[in-house]
Amino acid sequence: MAGSTFGTIFKITTWGESHGKGVGVVVDGCPAGLPLCEEDIQKFLDRRKPGQSKYTTPRKEDDTVEILSGVFDGKTTGTPISLVVYNKNQHSGDYSEIASYYRPGHADYTFDMKYGFRDYRGGGRSSGRETIGRVAAGAIAVKILNQLGITFTTYTKSIGPITVKNFDASQIAENPLNMPDTEAAENAQAYLDACMAELNSSGGVVECIICGMPVGIGDPVFEKLNANLAKAIMSIGAVKGFEIGDGFDVAKATGKNNNDAFRLSANGSIEKVTNHAGGILGGISDGSDIILRASIKPTPSIAATQQTVNKSGDEIDINIKGRHDPIIVPRAVVVVESMAAITIVDALFSNMSARMDSLATFYRK
Amino acid sequence: MAGSTFGTIFKITTWGESHGKGVGVVVDGCPAGLPLCEEDIQKFLDRRKPGQSKYTTPRKEDDTVEILSGVFDGKTTGTPISLVVYNKNQHSGDYSEIASYYRPGHADYTFDMKYGFRDYRGGGRSSGRETIGRVAAGAIAVKILNQLGITFTTYTKSIGPITVKNFDASQIAENPLNMPDTEAAENAQAYLDACMAELNSSGGVVECIICGMPVGIGDPVFEKLNANLAKAIMSIGAVKGFEIGDGFDVAKATGKNNNDAFRLSANGSIEKVTNHAGGILGGISDGSDIILRASIKPTPSIAATQQTVNKSGDEIDINIKGRHDPIIVPRAVVVVESMAAITIVDALFSNMSARMDSLATFYRK
Amino acid sequence: MAGSTFGTIFKITTWGESHGKGVGVVVDGCPAGLPLCEEDIQKFLDRRKPGQSKYTTPRKEDDTVEILSGVFDGKTTGTPISLVVYNKNQHSGDYSEIASYYRPGHADYTFDMKYGFRDYRGGGRSSGRETIGRVAAGAIAVKILNQLGITFTTYTKSIGPITVKNFDASQIAENPLNMPDTEAAENAQAYLDACMAELNSSGGVVECIICGMPVGIGDPVFEKLNANLAKAIMSIGAVKGFEIGDGFDVAKATGKNNNDAFRLSANGSIEKVTNHAGGILGGISDGSDIILRASIKPTPSIAATQQTVNKSGDEIDINIKGRHDPIIVPRAVVVVESMAAITIVDALFSNMSARMDSLATFYRK
Amino acid sequence: MAGSTFGTIFKITTWGESHGKGVGVVVDGCPAGLPLCEEDIQKFLDRRKPGQSKYTTPRKEDDTVEILSGVFDGKTTGTPISLVVYNKNQHSGDYSEIASYYRPGHADYTFDMKYGFRDYRGGGRSSGRETIGRVAAGAIAVKILNQLGITFTTYTKSIGPITVKNFDASQIAENPLNMPDTEAAENAQAYLDACMAELNSSGGVVECIICGMPVGIGDPVFEKLNANLAKAIMSIGAVKGFEIGDGFDVAKATGKNNNDAFRLSANGSIEKVTNHAGGILGGISDGSDIILRASIKPTPSIAATQQTVNKSGDEIDINIKGRHDPIIVPRAVVVVESMAAITIVDALFSNMSARMDSLATFYRK
Repeated sequence: MAGSTFGTIFKITTWGESHGKGVGVVVDGCPAGLPLCEEDIQKFLDRRKPGQSKYTTPRKEDDTVEILSGVFDGKTTGTPISLVVYNKNQHSGDYSEIASYYRPGHADYTFDMKYGFRDYRGGGRSSGRETIGRVAAGAIAVKILNQLGITFTTYTKSIGPITVKNFDASQIAENPLNMPDTEAAENAQAYLDACMAELNSSGGVVECIICGMPVGIGDPVFEKLNANLAKAIMSIGAVKGFEIGDGFDVAKATGKNNNDAFRLSANGSIEKVTNHAGGILGGISDGSDIILRASIKPTPSIAATQQTVNKSGDEIDINIKGRHDPIIVPRAVVVVESMAAITIVDALFSNMSARMDSLATFYRK
Repeated sequence: MAGSTFGTIFKITTWGESHGKGVGVVVDGCPAGLPLCEEDIQKFLDRRKPGQSKYTTPRKEDDTVEILSGVFDGKTTGTPISLVVYNKNQHSGDYSEIASYYRPGHADYTFDMKYGFRDYRGGGRSSGRETIGRVAAGAIAVKILNQLGITFTTYTKSIGPITVKNFDASQIAENPLNMPDTEAAENAQAYLDACMAELNSSGGVVECIICGMPVGIGDPVFEKLNANLAKAIMSIGAVKGFEIGDGFDVAKATGKNNNDAFRLSANGSIEKVTNHAGGILGGISDGSDIILRASIKPTPSIAATQQTVNKSGDEIDINIKGRHDPIIVPRAVVVVESMAAITIVDALFSNMSARMDSLATFYRK
Repeated sequence: MAGSTFGTIFKITTWGESHGKGVGVVVDGCPAGLPLCEEDIQKFLDRRKPGQSKYTTPRKEDDTVEILSGVFDGKTTGTPISLVVYNKNQHSGDYSEIASYYRPGHADYTFDMKYGFRDYRGGGRSSGRETIGRVAAGAIAVKILNQLGITFTTYTKSIGPITVKNFDASQIAENPLNMPDTEAAENAQAYLDACMAELNSSGGVVECIICGMPVGIGDPVFEKLNANLAKAIMSIGAVKGFEIGDGFDVAKATGKNNNDAFRLSANGSIEKVTNHAGGILGGISDGSDIILRASIKPTPSIAATQQTVNKSGDEIDINIKGRHDPIIVPRAVVVVESMAAITIVDALFSNMSARMDSLATFYRK
Repeated sequence: MAGSTFGTIFKITTWGESHGKGVGVVVDGCPAGLPLCEEDIQKFLDRRKPGQSKYTTPRKEDDTVEILSGVFDGKTTGTPISLVVYNKNQHSGDYSEIASYYRPGHADYTFDMKYGFRDYRGGGRSSGRETIGRVAAGAIAVKILNQLGITFTTYTKSIGPITVKNFDASQIAENPLNMPDTEAAENAQAYLDACMAELNSSGGVVECIICGMPVGIGDPVFEKLNANLAKAIMSIGAVKGFEIGDGFDVAKATGKNNNDAFRLSANGSIEKVTNHAGGILGGISDGSDIILRASIKPTPSIAATQQTVNKSGDEIDINIKGRHDPIIVPRAVVVVESMAAITIVDALFSNMSARMDSLATFYRK
């Protein structure tokens, strides 16, 4: 089925394979009048760019985005914004061998079973390059949200056994792992060095905090804000778990310590004293920060010897060549932020007809 | 927005409030020719029925389902199946007080902010009774899947600090907590007794194992099977986390121990030696068991004193009265199974046009 | 597939067969705070009630609507509104014969081919009773629109060869054919008398005029307001053609006489001097009246002898018994109005995020 | 809202403005294994290419399509197919004047009201060039359908007062108006010559016949095949009316002459003796040819003097310059065919789970 479109009122459609002519996204439902230029989007793409440290693939991907439609006189027109990044630095030669077998942890086998064959070059549609469209669209979503006073702080929460302890947002961009804790970042680098020495790779956790959410966004049943965030984040390749607020820790908690008491703030507004709920109650934003986490598996492409089966049905041993990230978590940070932002925008747009009184105010000018 | 419909080709629409006239669901897109009677659905509803042990609310909910449409001569006709359960045992008097304040951990506050007011009786639309529609639809989904050789094993994995150790599926229905481990169930009951003595409540984890999945179901990008399962499960009230396969443990894993090697089975088919992936690779089912987990928060309605704010803007202390479950995990088991089944059915139906060759076989008879 | 849901943000899901337990609709996405009671909906259902003149079926259908959810303290809550009409006056005996053959002009044959069998009682799901859910939902949609200053005038434009000449809206409810022209109504009655004498039936045209539309509703490409109105109206059984504005007459027109000049109104606002476009330019409402028409085929159930084939594969002659309308156009008037209103509501709700400036005003209070 | 995506399982998303960098479409949900190359698509685009006779705009649009993704080794892979046509021959200078006023019959005014401003160059998003994406996607849809034995015959049925009388499909491509009747084509050319001499334009009708449809495609209620065809066709700019089968003529017909009798064909299969229904009964294909028509308004851009209002609020007289088609009907033929084909593909793909027996056959191999 058509599985490359996400969202209802704010809708993105991505396309492209790792080693095809390019990758891109059509962003539809963006309001008219948003100032937008290629630099806005390029900044986001650069956050996922590899080759910036030894902990990401040494592949040079000079991904340059081009706006093909939907912007006129420097502003969005309300019509679809088509964004393209042409593939330039792909070495198809590196990948020819993998056509013949199924890499463990990859989608090679399931693609062949579903579609009868696959574009095996660089992972094809299930390559990490598929996220370029998500991030380009995310740049637009974040820009819309910033204009409404909603902001994102997204970072690497843990790598392997190393978890952030002393949170300092100012440090996120200061280390190659996007960790808000200099000491944790150093320990994580040491851990990754050891992984790499063993031709191995590591997983980790990304956390995203969304500030400035209005109260009342999301819906009570299937379109709970947390449900749509879960789908958005779990649709990112390599994500195997999703949490909102206290997440899996609530299983061990009790009502007494998990419930967030309501109190009055200094200015008399209602606020929660704690935020175990992660900013969402009954599927609807409660005005506190939305806090979510994604667990990301270790890069499946490792140089160490692995067992698999080839297309002829023989059991074989393989060593995956090519240029692979020993950890994808730092590069996934901006992807998580993008998907969260796209989801929030759609929820905000879908919420505007929730009340008859504000509807009448909107239309009876 | 309209948030009470789930699914694309197999689509369910639920309705109803805790203390309104009833709750129900319209199941649309069910294939014609499935044998179906009310007993098929009642069996599922009985699995979520309260009042069966001291660990669930003593409210007596004699929920009897009625099929209003879509079945003729004992078989589904392909048209929408409307199912209704009339509310009978609701004591509206019990809830009048809560109209005036916002219960911690509930959706009272967010409903009022979103909609301007709320049906406060028994939680209204965000009551646990909202899941009756999901379970009624789930009964149909599971019946469809059983005919295709796909089966479910769903159970309580943990309650508070007590986790299942010696898995024995035959024990799931033999204890009031739906745990596949008699000893763990006994320990969990002791733990719950202590919670109840403190007017407290507990969270837990539900696990669902899906056997017999064909390879190739799900889509590569936004409609990954795990993404849709995540949305389905996270849309259940009280669920705060979702995992597929090794879930959050992958963050601490390495590529060497997280990758599942492919090997040949005794009959020559390709299989994974391990199943860290939980049955899904690149968003597409790989033929192994699908394994998913949901973390469920402690019942927010506790009798212990809590702090909150009332609608007049005063800070107050409250003690929630009424008949509440000290733990909802055992009753949530069938809800998780239902939502998983509904998602799998939709994925199977959406997958049938994936290949030109099987499409031509289907239509060129 | 699931084909019984219509709309994106304002979404209706209908269910029910002619001779099942009942028919109904779930209306989801209705804003909170709309005053609503059963009488509001009953008034609409009464407009499609048969048995009010000799030109409609003498079947007595005392269709009484019940609100099962979504309304509290006399106002909508923002959650799904479930409406049910139980079937009371169905004579299943009348229809047993038609189980064995395919009625010309009906869906008997296509249902059997698609689903393998059918609920043959009274047409099952393809009975005219299917429109009860549409009309019940339409009552809510019209009530929302009235609060925004948008009103509907819908009527029988023609019956067989008899067309309205002297339009007088006050006459619509004054004759059994819902024609806004007393003389035309009398001529049409004479024409229908002749049809009935020949055991025959007649077609006709329904026209709907929508006043008070804001400018700017609808979208430029696939979600053109006229495209969604076309789908809505063509989804009504028996409708075979749809027009907006001058409709098929534009094929014979020239640019000079079809273009609507813009001029300033007395109060200085921009208006079209003529309205060949029917209130929509480029898929977007232009502030003029929206004018649409539906052509409705003659009732296929006629008492005259017809040729067909039975399920055993024999060619047979049949005479359809039972109580059938010699014309369905007058009863279809409220169905057309309902589907148009549902479409307009969804378009209004989907339009609220079209501009960054009004979005910011809405959310940055 | 996002209005540039069409379809459910087979889904197209178009983008692009007349004078932006290009126009394109993402086709998602195409089955894997369809042989596809750029020439397949170019052939369709060439059918809408202007400049081929004096009856179309003399603008030279050398529209060359490029496949950016979704095809590997000459076959579709099942992933999104991104198609782009770069704009090359646009003269922005021609259009600068129209920025200041609202052209009658165009979307200038409604765009400004909806979005606050517009890309006025060449009509921007509401230009006829928007249909390039539809036609490129249509080429793929038709290719899929041809493999299933479904074929299209689409042509100009009438131009102004001139209607096809002696149908001869072989003539469609033999005259610049795409009429299947040489004599009618000659008369229509004379009529158009007269229109052009008066700086005027003409409307017309396109008819599309779809042969080889399986029985049972489409759904009974809102997703009637005719309803989706209506939306598809009415979403094409300039279309003001839609008919299926006898269309508006049914309003004047009686049951006796409008019902299609069923009889047995020579080979014993069931068939309709006539086809007033246009191949669809109760929203579901009946195996006869599907016959549909679209009425298309005269080109609104005419050189004759017209009255309008400018953005400063002055009433002015204008003469539209630039290179415009005196009739768009012949170029619309392939657009109607494309939208019909896209709709039929989606209906076929959505129908595969209609029956439990064929579902089980499909999955229990």
